[in-house]
Amino acid sequence: MTRDEALALDAADPLAFTRDRFALPEGTIYLDGNSLGALPAGTSDHVARVMQEEWGRDLISSWNRHDWIRLPQRIGARIAALVGAEEDEVIACDSTSVNLYKLLCAALPLRPDRTTVLIEDGGFPTDRYIAAEVCARAGRTLRAVPRGELASSIDGDTALVLLTHVDYRSGAVADMAGITAAAHGAGALALWDLSHSAGAVAVELGAARADFAVGCGYKYLNGGPGAPAWLYARRDLHDALATPIPGWLGHAAPFDFEQDYRPAPGIARMLCGTPPVLAMAGLERGLMQFGGVDTSALFAKGRALGDLAIALVEDRCAGHPLTLASPRDGTLRGSHVSFAHPHAYALCQALIARGVVGDFRTPDLLRLGFAPLYLRHVDVWDAVAALGDVLDSGEWDDPRHHRRNAVT
Amino acid sequence: MTRDEALALDAADPLAFTRDRFALPEGTIYLDGNSLGALPAGTSDHVARVMQEEWGRDLISSWNRHDWIRLPQRIGARIAALVGAEEDEVIACDSTSVNLYKLLCAALPLRPDRTTVLIEDGGFPTDRYIAAEVCARAGRTLRAVPRGELASSIDGDTALVLLTHVDYRSGAVADMAGITAAAHGAGALALWDLSHSAGAVAVELGAARADFAVGCGYKYLNGGPGAPAWLYARRDLHDALATPIPGWLGHAAPFDFEQDYRPAPGIARMLCGTPPVLAMAGLERGLMQFGGVDTSALFAKGRALGDLAIALVEDRCAGHPLTLASPRDGTLRGSHVSFAHPHAYALCQALIARGVVGDFRTPDLLRLGFAPLYLRHVDVWDAVAALGDVLDSGEWDDPRHHRRNAVT
Repeated sequence: MTRDEALALDAADPLAFTRDRFALPEGTIYLDGNSLGALPAGTSDHVARVMQEEWGRDLISSWNRHDWIRLPQRIGARIAALVGAEEDEVIACDSTSVNLYKLLCAALPLRPDRTTVLIEDGGFPTDRYIAAEVCARAGRTLRAVPRGELASSIDGDTALVLLTHVDYRSGAVADMAGITAAAHGAGALALWDLSHSAGAVAVELGAARADFAVGCGYKYLNGGPGAPAWLYARRDLHDALATPIPGWLGHAAPFDFEQDYRPAPGIARMLCGTPPVLAMAGLERGLMQFGGVDTSALFAKGRALGDLAIALVEDRCAGHPLTLASPRDGTLRGSHVSFAHPHAYALCQALIARGVVGDFRTPDLLRLGFAPLYLRHVDVWDAVAALGDVLDSGEWDDPRHHRRNAVT
Repeated sequence: MTRDEALALDAADPLAFTRDRFALPEGTIYLDGNSLGALPAGTSDHVARVMQEEWGRDLISSWNRHDWIRLPQRIGARIAALVGAEEDEVIACDSTSVNLYKLLCAALPLRPDRTTVLIEDGGFPTDRYIAAEVCARAGRTLRAVPRGELASSIDGDTALVLLTHVDYRSGAVADMAGITAAAHGAGALALWDLSHSAGAVAVELGAARADFAVGCGYKYLNGGPGAPAWLYARRDLHDALATPIPGWLGHAAPFDFEQDYRPAPGIARMLCGTPPVLAMAGLERGLMQFGGVDTSALFAKGRALGDLAIALVEDRCAGHPLTLASPRDGTLRGSHVSFAHPHAYALCQALIARGVVGDFRTPDLLRLGFAPLYLRHVDVWDAVAALGDVLDSGEWDDPRHHRRNAVT
């Protein structure tokens, strides 16, 4: 494909209009994949208005007047629409880590006689740290198996399966329906980490009958750095959930200051502290970027950008030790593509120096993300051209590119 | 005191300059006490700049370039200066509830053979909910005693004493040094909730040898609605702390994506998920309001405003069933004053309708806060005049003032 052909694809793209919804810096091709979604064009004004008019002018009355108190539910409903859940099954709150912790602690008592929590070997580290700690405190065993052996490893001792839907390195998409069904078939529960999925690939929590899920707000949901996270629990499980961190916002009567905790009905019982309004405002505005967008077409565009990247890299960079570390089949892949290279870190830094921002994942991955709301075919073409030049010139082998630097 | 005398006090006030650091709405006297501090004048521009320049332009590189990664420590150091702690003993993160949970879970294993956690009867509800849940899961007993009997109730079975320093209703200040010493004398630990203290009254965590503390960022620290909270642990305890929620940011090598958790040295091990940068930026800017301010003089001004309110109310509102529900001695009181009234809720609403914003606390308290950074003597005078008028006219007894509405 020539650059002109890439431009022609963009000219014919029915989703091209969404790029203008973002404030992208000049001279940067942002293929971070995806540790931080780009700034939506309207977010700064929106959050400034919340600060000036809601906080500054209306002050404490804004909890009611501007419905701050229901931000977790309002935002949850928007996220639910992106992950195939009902709007009362998702709330936005806390961090992904805290939400995972709360759900794990609430889920294990639902399977009191089972000994094991099953995770994938080499999965996302934080998820594993938290699962290990919850298991240790609950007297359960954490068992890690290779991703491909998860479904077949579920047995009568399995209380819960915890799995990342889109792998943060390879981008491989797990079979949510199949693994959830396998868990249910053995009497186990399934908890999904959708941090790299929500807003990037099709997710059908309801159709899969998934029990629980968590995700972050700062990747494809465009909520900003460290945006509030979210959690999902299937509606029929809500009444049985007991949070380990019973804060006032999860109380049945949060304004009555009762001395004893009574969980709120529904998923609100998984809330805890006061919602972070400024951060929530950023996330709410970020989710508005999906307004009027056919998400099936959007996710297909993400796959097409990834397919294009693979084809162009294998053509332009042939002869260099760069190998695809993601599924070639776009239907089995999230919205990022990783390539292994013995000097991936330095390669990533050299690309950044040229204005092409991808990221490095240990030990040897160059990860390129294709957020379909704001990336074009020509961006992919230009990025691969830069990658080819960096490899051909050897400019990656420069001491200034040789230090560590990565945030997930 | 006449209104002119109040104006004269303001004219002579060496701290009068700090009022201009806030964007207060015209026509409102903001005596919320204190569920939400007022908007600092520079916060909106600061957070907008963080959004546009750091998030929007520098994107993922901002974790290093703008030191987002150390926001918890940077902000913690500012808070430490307000509560008599060392700068490496405080970090900003999560919500107050989550921080309390983490510290309680980390503290109890330090006293493995002791059965009881001691709290005050009628203390802040969320703290009690969380302590009850932690105790239940850890096989300990939560014992509530009246505030005045706490110190004498500590015994050889007490693992930890959890106490709010400034009571959210009465404003009564607990004897931090005395109760901590009593706890230590019996071999117990002391954990302080400083939500209504930090930035409002003198706190000397280090001098008191306090073990742990938590606090919120949205009251006297001016961090905005639902701002990140913070936690403190005395330095010599850090190495022994094991967080129940081991997230990537508390790892010794957060960027190495190791499969097993290794706690970071120092208090950073109590961190968990990705810092909420927009909310953190608001809190950091809020804390800058204390720059160049003699906090001893500031806290003395807060006491003087409370003293003035008591004197004026007892004069102007004599004959109405309004009774002081706070310590009369300003040295025993935080920066708010509460009055009991059989129709406190409606009274509060009628005052709000006149532009005087206090808040109601169940069952019968009108709570008035005196944030000394932005309130004047004449504000207190005008507010009490309005209160007197509302009582004399009976305008509080209007159906539109008769519903419930409060956020702590």
